Amino acid sequence: MKAEIIAIGTELLIGDVINTNATWLSKELAALGIDIYYHQTVGDNPARIHAALDAAIPRADILIFTGGLGPTDDDLTIATLSDYFHTPMAPDPDSEEKIRNYFITRDMPMSKLNLKQALKPIDAQTLQNPVGTAPGIMWDVSPKSGKPTYILTFPGVPKELYAMWPTGKAFLQEKLRERNESPTVLITQFLHFFGIGESKLGELLRDLMQAETPTVAPYVGNAEVRIRIAAKAASETEALTLIQPVKAEILKRCGDYYFGENGCTLEQCVADLLIEKHLTVSVAESCTGGLVSSRLTDISGSSAYTMLNLVTYSNAQKVKMLDVRPETLSVHGAVSAETAIEMAVGAKKISGCDIGLSLTGIAGPTGETGDKPVGLVYIGIAGPGDQPPIAKKVLVNRNYTRADIKYWFSQYALHFLRLSLQGLLSPDAPAEGAQTPVASHRSPA
Amino acid sequence: MKAEIIAIGTELLIGDVINTNATWLSKELAALGIDIYYHQTVGDNPARIHAALDAAIPRADILIFTGGLGPTDDDLTIATLSDYFHTPMAPDPDSEEKIRNYFITRDMPMSKLNLKQALKPIDAQTLQNPVGTAPGIMWDVSPKSGKPTYILTFPGVPKELYAMWPTGKAFLQEKLRERNESPTVLITQFLHFFGIGESKLGELLRDLMQAETPTVAPYVGNAEVRIRIAAKAASETEALTLIQPVKAEILKRCGDYYFGENGCTLEQCVADLLIEKHLTVSVAESCTGGLVSSRLTDISGSSAYTMLNLVTYSNAQKVKMLDVRPETLSVHGAVSAETAIEMAVGAKKISGCDIGLSLTGIAGPTGETGDKPVGLVYIGIAGPGDQPPIAKKVLVNRNYTRADIKYWFSQYALHFLRLSLQGLLSPDAPAEGAQTPVASHRSPA
Repeated sequence: MKAEIIAIGTELLIGDVINTNATWLSKELAALGIDIYYHQTVGDNPARIHAALDAAIPRADILIFTGGLGPTDDDLTIATLSDYFHTPMAPDPDSEEKIRNYFITRDMPMSKLNLKQALKPIDAQTLQNPVGTAPGIMWDVSPKSGKPTYILTFPGVPKELYAMWPTGKAFLQEKLRERNESPTVLITQFLHFFGIGESKLGELLRDLMQAETPTVAPYVGNAEVRIRIAAKAASETEALTLIQPVKAEILKRCGDYYFGENGCTLEQCVADLLIEKHLTVSVAESCTGGLVSSRLTDISGSSAYTMLNLVTYSNAQKVKMLDVRPETLSVHGAVSAETAIEMAVGAKKISGCDIGLSLTGIAGPTGETGDKPVGLVYIGIAGPGDQPPIAKKVLVNRNYTRADIKYWFSQYALHFLRLSLQGLLSPDAPAEGAQTPVASHRSPA
Repeated sequence: MKAEIIAIGTELLIGDVINTNATWLSKELAALGIDIYYHQTVGDNPARIHAALDAAIPRADILIFTGGLGPTDDDLTIATLSDYFHTPMAPDPDSEEKIRNYFITRDMPMSKLNLKQALKPIDAQTLQNPVGTAPGIMWDVSPKSGKPTYILTFPGVPKELYAMWPTGKAFLQEKLRERNESPTVLITQFLHFFGIGESKLGELLRDLMQAETPTVAPYVGNAEVRIRIAAKAASETEALTLIQPVKAEILKRCGDYYFGENGCTLEQCVADLLIEKHLTVSVAESCTGGLVSSRLTDISGSSAYTMLNLVTYSNAQKVKMLDVRPETLSVHGAVSAETAIEMAVGAKKISGCDIGLSLTGIAGPTGETGDKPVGLVYIGIAGPGDQPPIAKKVLVNRNYTRADIKYWFSQYALHFLRLSLQGLLSPDAPAEGAQTPVASHRSPA
């Protein structure tokens, strides 16, 4: 079957919102073996939604609408579809009750407009929305259009679409079965890397990237590089059999930079290692202001390894809370390997954790001095046990925004913590003038 | 004039690439006063590009193509356009020389395919590409289509599009002048709100949302609601004069929930207030794990109000670092108004800051008990001065992801801090059984 995605929303046409839903749905449909030949975007306007339907129905069997399910007057998707197929609407009692309850349990006044969201064409199924008040519909209009035509509607809010998709997907899979289309599957796997650039990865994997199947391609993510391996086959098992040896070869070549697959994050990787090894960590942050701590506690179960983290932003608090020596600050500065090491040692001590992790750097755009530019950070690691504390020096691209620089710093901190937990972090040669082991790293291009 | 954006590229239809070009161009065209009613995306396929043209020509005067200008066989945009309008192609000598020079100066071997990029319909103008080898075209096909029709083509690579746009824009401005359409400007402003739902805002602003100009529309953002005010006029000054009274009316009706405009964040709003009032704040977090601290330090200059923040994840650390009484924890639990208040008081004391802000709650998906569900948080505020500490109780949607719940909690903490700094936070009636002032809030839909 062929699908077409129709996004409804004036906000898309005036450039206020990027249509990420079309991208996300395209990927999901491709994974079901469903082809897509067209995307359309139209405004909140019945005549133009009619025109989009006129164009799409002859060329697609599955029409997926996003947007226009909200409670306000300019949300027209379902009413326009009912009108197009000359089908009266009626409120879905379950949806109506769910909407009422939503407001009652939240002790909020319900607007009459919200009940509009319970209306659907009388012969359409409700597509429940577990995270919002706007349900969608799943509607087989084949008898009305004289050819196979299935309509699904989703809200424009991405997280509501994601939460509702499993139900819509099951509906489509049933239709594929009914029509005896044994679909080919496209299986995609992503391998996540940090500490190596896209061009270097591309160089190391060049021969694999030229192969026809499975396809191998690098993608630059948010302070990481992902390698996508994709194989099309008659079954998932068959596709995975094609993928497996390629994945093994990639990890053989660049495994030191690999931290997980299919959406894994560095904090998840580190959390798994900490839990596996029964270790706890205390983070003392300066320039990152709590970002590393927040990321480490994004993982459910983080209380197994988190007890106390500190953001010691001022020098006085570094001295008071972490026992950083005032001489260290005056001789080497707050942004130095020496301070990073004393912060890590101090965090380990005050928290009673197995490991102390510290960051001190310059996130910019202000605060740099002659020899300490924006983008410079020192990361300290103390422990576990009596293992000597070390500091790593990193320089990231100073042209990034402050938020991006903070994120890159946090990536490096988690990266070094991962290496340390895996026994891969060596105290490299001391940097010039440093009294403690420190190594330089530059962020990849 | 009306425009339509047609993106060409199979990579868009399989979900590998997000169509940010359509968003960017839409914004640029809106700023020229040119309306857009449709976006289309089609694959690298002549028949489907023909179908897109069939649909677009009757309804748009300006067709803007992105993608399909590369050197490889599947780059078909210009050849397909020539074919559609029965117009022969010829190489543009300037483009051909430029392509040859591009490779000579880079000492790279040129592929014959690259010269294909110099081909254009004989009566089209070349749209030079200053940053790549793929030129575009600017083509007035009005005589061929029997109505005003202007075609522009751009590469799919965003930075090439951006570099070529000024030339394309000048071409369009000339056409607007030729057709005596004195170009209008569209000015857009966003007002940001937190603590009120989209439907409630829609109800309060219904009459304004029905007005023709300026247009007023709500958008659900990431744990916030934005109201967009847009006015079309002959000049920017004129548009702003239309917007001003509407903005004032909106703020009169819902100003208590307003925290800033045009991309302002709650942390920026709070930072501005802290700096203006020369106040410092110390945050003691539990469930949010450092997120509030990280957000408060996302603002350049945050060292003016940040000295020490703490993540006291374990009960033992709440007692040790913040002087929370063990009896408070055993009688009321860690997630309680009483604990939140003692945490806020403790943070204020240990840091020496003017204000203590605390959060203790259940971010899920595990950790809930009978009367304390996932999504429950208590937020404590102590100070400035001798002002009695208070706690606020909030329940957010328990179906959100852990990361989203953490973010909503952090929004509420910053929201209450803003209200407190503006003298708008009253110690409401005590919740049932609570010994300290505490009020209930539920997150809006």
